[in-house]
Amino acid sequence: MSDFVRHVPVHWNDCDPARIVFHSHYVRWMDEGFHELARARGVDFAELQVAEPSFRGSPLVNIACAFRAPAMYGDTLEHRIAPPRIGGGRSYRVRHSFRKGAVLVAEGEQVRIWGMAGPGGEGLKAAPVPPDIAARLRGEAGTAAGR
Amino acid sequence: MSDFVRHVPVHWNDCDPARIVFHSHYVRWMDEGFHELARARGVDFAELQVAEPSFRGSPLVNIACAFRAPAMYGDTLEHRIAPPRIGGGRSYRVRHSFRKGAVLVAEGEQVRIWGMAGPGGEGLKAAPVPPDIAARLRGEAGTAAGR
Amino acid sequence: MSDFVRHVPVHWNDCDPARIVFHSHYVRWMDEGFHELARARGVDFAELQVAEPSFRGSPLVNIACAFRAPAMYGDTLEHRIAPPRIGGGRSYRVRHSFRKGAVLVAEGEQVRIWGMAGPGGEGLKAAPVPPDIAARLRGEAGTAAGR
Amino acid sequence: MSDFVRHVPVHWNDCDPARIVFHSHYVRWMDEGFHELARARGVDFAELQVAEPSFRGSPLVNIACAFRAPAMYGDTLEHRIAPPRIGGGRSYRVRHSFRKGAVLVAEGEQVRIWGMAGPGGEGLKAAPVPPDIAARLRGEAGTAAGR
Repeated sequence: MSDFVRHVPVHWNDCDPARIVFHSHYVRWMDEGFHELARARGVDFAELQVAEPSFRGSPLVNIACAFRAPAMYGDTLEHRIAPPRIGGGRSYRVRHSFRKGAVLVAEGEQVRIWGMAGPGGEGLKAAPVPPDIAARLRGEAGTAAGR
Repeated sequence: MSDFVRHVPVHWNDCDPARIVFHSHYVRWMDEGFHELARARGVDFAELQVAEPSFRGSPLVNIACAFRAPAMYGDTLEHRIAPPRIGGGRSYRVRHSFRKGAVLVAEGEQVRIWGMAGPGGEGLKAAPVPPDIAARLRGEAGTAAGR
Repeated sequence: MSDFVRHVPVHWNDCDPARIVFHSHYVRWMDEGFHELARARGVDFAELQVAEPSFRGSPLVNIACAFRAPAMYGDTLEHRIAPPRIGGGRSYRVRHSFRKGAVLVAEGEQVRIWGMAGPGGEGLKAAPVPPDIAARLRGEAGTAAGR
Repeated sequence: MSDFVRHVPVHWNDCDPARIVFHSHYVRWMDEGFHELARARGVDFAELQVAEPSFRGSPLVNIACAFRAPAMYGDTLEHRIAPPRIGGGRSYRVRHSFRKGAVLVAEGEQVRIWGMAGPGGEGLKAAPVPPDIAARLRGEAGTAAGR
């Protein structure tokens, strides 16, 4: 298991008249980072849906984010995502942090489900994450596609 | 034929560290306004697609926008859309202006096509806008659904 | 004390390829709604800063949001904000809900501080919300400017 | 003189229910790219303003963008910026293109001014770009800071 790390440049238009990042961008960046983690670890939601037509992606049911210090135009943030905590339950948690050098700028959490179509192909219900996919998302050794 | 007018509040997060609206929001507002015009005049792209499955909406091929004066958080802009200039051609133009009181803040133009699926249902080709829909989009008298 | 209610149209560009509102827009809408509540209730952060130069606005320290049901292009959401719960502490909570007819689409909470410049005019520290402003933000009877 | 090239990943939330990039994001990306070009070539607008307090940045007066082919979630676009065409006039043009492999997805132009405070420090007027800064923005050989 390993953290996933990427770097996020703060653009001029990410900042508001207080000259700091407008907070909803951290929420957007958490989602962009999760998608990048999945792709980097060989989990392609579009491919999974082709293989299993009742799969409906892994939607968010809850997010939270705390804002600890300001970030400004020109900063580059280290976005670190801990291995998703996927247990036997119907949802799983993904922890995120954003740092500017040693300073914690923001930290947050996403709660996601593994979505499957309901009876008759309608609606959405939560299902357990298949174990091989859970292992990939966590970045466990030996789960690369080529193995 | 008549102009379509709506009012756009400038939100805190629409503004950048120069304390003025970040320009791409005018481009977004032009599109939101066009959609509101269409709905207000009884043109529902989703319904049209149900009635004619090869219809692909009315996508943009070109936009331009000039920025004349700044707008700030707390301003409310008058967004005015002239009657779309739909002739016999394969594209049509929609003119937009944004005013803050008497001051012209920004003005722009969208060029849109009437999109139809290409041969075999693939791709996208431009088609003339059906005359009854053109009349509705222009806001011509007597085109209301109930007439 | 009274709820503040506004209506939020769901625009085409608020929705993602799953055809539903991308979640970070609820976080943005919570903030836009709080600013509208403040202005509607006679609390103007810019004016307050002119009157008291060490005032630094009312920044967010924490947000959370739960997504209960999807909303789509063309929907109009009722955004309801409960009276901010401003006690004697250094932060206060603002509860938000978004409904589509009777269906709860999303609900969330903001935690904000009343920000004052630190010693020497640097940094930011939390202070109690002045009682007359707290009363206005809560929408208490008899707090209108004209009284 | 040389082109400036960067790569732009298409995120899930950049796409609309038609599953393609919503067009205003190209306008935003043009601006993000221009800022990256300036920084990469040693032109720091914030530093320039400290050195010359009447400098007001290089705001946009006009943009145009044509949309040639769709881009989708998961694509990575090559964003190429031609050397800004800075002549003796009061504004200058910056050409942008976005490609997905060999396919031209979008191309556009920004018209910017070099902004200086007007008489009494109020307002904004266009001034010629200082020659050494023009050379840097164009990426001319031998203009690096260390020379």
